[in-house]
Amino acid sequence: MNPEHFKQQMAFLAEIDKMKSVYRQTILIDKSRRETDAEHSWHLAMMAMVLFEHNPDPRVDLFRVIRMGLVHDLVEIYAGDTFAYDAEGNKTKAAREEAAADQLFAMLPEKQGAEYRALWEEFDAEETPDARYAVAMDRLQPFLNNYMTQGHTWGPTHVTESKVRSRVGIIEHTVPEIWPMVDAMIKECVEKGWLYQD
Amino acid sequence: MNPEHFKQQMAFLAEIDKMKSVYRQTILIDKSRRETDAEHSWHLAMMAMVLFEHNPDPRVDLFRVIRMGLVHDLVEIYAGDTFAYDAEGNKTKAAREEAAADQLFAMLPEKQGAEYRALWEEFDAEETPDARYAVAMDRLQPFLNNYMTQGHTWGPTHVTESKVRSRVGIIEHTVPEIWPMVDAMIKECVEKGWLYQD
Repeated sequence: MNPEHFKQQMAFLAEIDKMKSVYRQTILIDKSRRETDAEHSWHLAMMAMVLFEHNPDPRVDLFRVIRMGLVHDLVEIYAGDTFAYDAEGNKTKAAREEAAADQLFAMLPEKQGAEYRALWEEFDAEETPDARYAVAMDRLQPFLNNYMTQGHTWGPTHVTESKVRSRVGIIEHTVPEIWPMVDAMIKECVEKGWLYQD
Repeated sequence: MNPEHFKQQMAFLAEIDKMKSVYRQTILIDKSRRETDAEHSWHLAMMAMVLFEHNPDPRVDLFRVIRMGLVHDLVEIYAGDTFAYDAEGNKTKAAREEAAADQLFAMLPEKQGAEYRALWEEFDAEETPDARYAVAMDRLQPFLNNYMTQGHTWGPTHVTESKVRSRVGIIEHTVPEIWPMVDAMIKECVEKGWLYQD
């Protein structure tokens, strides 16, 4: 037992409490306020677990996906949340998040910090089967909240159908059996005027 | 593929968004507001993962612990959060939560609903190695936030040292190697006047 490890870990666990004060664009379904990164990460992990029967790729390891989902937005504690459809913000996102990762993961014992950083980098690269399933859930979660709130985030931010399709398109390739139903939800949003066609 | 499963699962995932509107007694470390059940569940899962090296029991399955942590408070969507030190509320807690579980888990495909309900019941019984480690983390998380906020929740609710010790005592038996440091934190809280002795 290394007491220094415990102290570092508790300091890290206190620091990441800030995930409860990083507010995203997505609104709660009850519309009371915007959701936080901590809430989004929990909802994503639940979604990955609940919908796992639809994943067709035997290489996907749900345990890794959930750990990835829990840590994937930690860098936003310092880098802030960059709205998916904010073109300017997304130009500087990578550099801001790299600097944030350098600062945050260094709080942990070295091996552990490297492990979480690698999970975040894997998520961000969207290449491995685990990352692709996790990213599909990361796209489906805000889509569900927007669907349930009549496109609450889309209207004011001028998000159009093609932009939503380019965000959630990964679902078609990663979890193809649910795609027809997600596609039908998008069409319904357009028909009801919650989402504008380009 | 059963399309009905997906519909049930999405309805469930929308319903549990309400975890973001169940406010607990615990305050965020930045003191901006009380934390939500969704945030607490995420923080607990992170804590279980980060501190896992200190768990001495080889039977503990971290994947199960994390899934248990993610679902352990879902019944509060209908039953509400019962403050740990609320004697009256705790008399009716079990019945309220049973009714909530009947309602909530029935939204899911039968086998899946039964699986999550079993995880919640296992957590609540505090008997298996997985449940005991999960419960230890469930006690340590609000303790950390109280420690970091000079006992913010304890003062107004007249929580004393012996009550805190009876809550976090499970840590001593479940994750003994971190206990001396948790014990030292409790003593510090008493010395600094954040926590009253009985």
